[in-house]
Amino acid sequence: MTEPATASDLAARAQAGDRRALARLLTEIENRTATAEAALRILYPLAGRAHLVGITGPPGAGKSTLISALIGAVRATGRPVAVLAVDPSSPVTGGAILGDRVRMMDHAGDRDVFIRSMASRGHAGGLATATIAAAAVLDAAGFPIVFLETVGTGQAEVEVAAVADTTLVVEAPDMGDDVQAIKAGLLEVADIIVVTKGDRPGADRTAGRLRAMLGTALEVLVTAATNGAGIPELLDAIDGRAAGLGARGAGGDGARLARARAQLEGIVAERIQARILAAARTAETEVLLRAIAAHEVDPYTAADRVIAVLDGAPRV
Amino acid sequence: MTEPATASDLAARAQAGDRRALARLLTEIENRTATAEAALRILYPLAGRAHLVGITGPPGAGKSTLISALIGAVRATGRPVAVLAVDPSSPVTGGAILGDRVRMMDHAGDRDVFIRSMASRGHAGGLATATIAAAAVLDAAGFPIVFLETVGTGQAEVEVAAVADTTLVVEAPDMGDDVQAIKAGLLEVADIIVVTKGDRPGADRTAGRLRAMLGTALEVLVTAATNGAGIPELLDAIDGRAAGLGARGAGGDGARLARARAQLEGIVAERIQARILAAARTAETEVLLRAIAAHEVDPYTAADRVIAVLDGAPRV
Repeated sequence: MTEPATASDLAARAQAGDRRALARLLTEIENRTATAEAALRILYPLAGRAHLVGITGPPGAGKSTLISALIGAVRATGRPVAVLAVDPSSPVTGGAILGDRVRMMDHAGDRDVFIRSMASRGHAGGLATATIAAAAVLDAAGFPIVFLETVGTGQAEVEVAAVADTTLVVEAPDMGDDVQAIKAGLLEVADIIVVTKGDRPGADRTAGRLRAMLGTALEVLVTAATNGAGIPELLDAIDGRAAGLGARGAGGDGARLARARAQLEGIVAERIQARILAAARTAETEVLLRAIAAHEVDPYTAADRVIAVLDGAPRV
Repeated sequence: MTEPATASDLAARAQAGDRRALARLLTEIENRTATAEAALRILYPLAGRAHLVGITGPPGAGKSTLISALIGAVRATGRPVAVLAVDPSSPVTGGAILGDRVRMMDHAGDRDVFIRSMASRGHAGGLATATIAAAAVLDAAGFPIVFLETVGTGQAEVEVAAVADTTLVVEAPDMGDDVQAIKAGLLEVADIIVVTKGDRPGADRTAGRLRAMLGTALEVLVTAATNGAGIPELLDAIDGRAAGLGARGAGGDGARLARARAQLEGIVAERIQARILAAARTAETEVLLRAIAAHEVDPYTAADRVIAVLDGAPRV
């Protein structure tokens, strides 16, 4: 499908902004390959300048349309921009849903706009780790702003939103009583609330309700993709936050430390867990699984036995 | 808030169907307490008879309304029924969203209907493990059918659906082109597809489209909560699958083995990971985290160092 490439080749081409190399490297990251790891060891120290902006909210809130408008606004300032669309919905097939991406196709011909879906491989924490790694690659490639779009309001979305420097939570008007309305967990990671579809009559009411609920804790902005209303103000608010973030090298900024912790603990846990679960896949464990399934033994007692065997086995 | 209770008290009262004891024990399970573990060690061998029926699909598909109708149909046969509403959306606050639950309040006065939300504590895999444990408690308490409702279509939902004996995937009419439409990952865990809101004109078209897409691989049923159309047929299809499931003690049934594996690996991984991450929380790790945040060291190199220290530390 693609030519063979060493990790150092791939890293060098990605750093230079080669789109095919970027796409290839992001696939390697999704698949957690040794090539991805080797390239990230090279690229990570070159990153640290980009502003990572999470955009989350319920399906139908208009996230993709909003991002398309924001891309236009960023491009109007002359800056390149990247979007990682994070989709934790399809772990079984492992393929990201590209449906909404077509709305961003306005920018398909622009070489300074890089849009990519990130699908879930393995557990939710792994998706956050992979997204952080992908953002670091785009950062090293020189994109000064990287949007991290998530498709829903689940746990994986909150995990991704929690590691962005700035998180926008997007809501459409008139969804106040719906189960799709902003969840408490999302509000807690929000930096800016965006009410989309501002040309609808309910938009100002929704914004007012949110402002009443939130007090002065969070900025609530109203946008309308149809006429671009509110988009420049939103980009100003985003850029204003970038100015306030910790300088590169300070290492004391909350979101940067949260990303560092998510990456380090994710990598350590994944490696150790892989070793442990591989070591635990014995004939004895298979017998225990059948006994659990038959309700002859409880899973805690079975886990005790597995761990006792592991503790007696060669050191992990 | 509640009186102190030993695990064996709690287990005995839960087994007898005491609703306060059940509610209390499910909270202990959500919080992964030692009391929960001790009670589960007692109750797990008493379980193995219930039919676990997962119900999943996008927000707005009508899952809660469908479940309310199914509860009525099960009760009409004289059987008690339990519902676990699994909400992975609010990990930050740790509180389950009860919004849609009110639609099930028709059955609030019925002592043979037990409805409970399960919130997410920690990672998504942990939610599946907790839900399986909660289902085992309801199983041991004598509920012959336990509905596992999930609120969305994310990874956690698929994980929960994958461990049910029978999984219904619910879709409303006329959502074919929407990002909320059935995701490939959900179809792969589905046993029965239910098109709700069958009184709407688009319902038969949606069912036809799904049948054309799926061939004979899956049964596609249409229901209408307004007049109860299709509900008895759906309960028949569910009960028909229960009859075909492996007898208790056989231990060879796919869903039962999948649950056993999810539980065993979840418990083993959680214990080992807790030990590992606790052992890794050293002053040296804090220095590494700041170095990662400052992009002075890549997270893989940092993970190498942490694991090297752990491997040299007292055996895990």
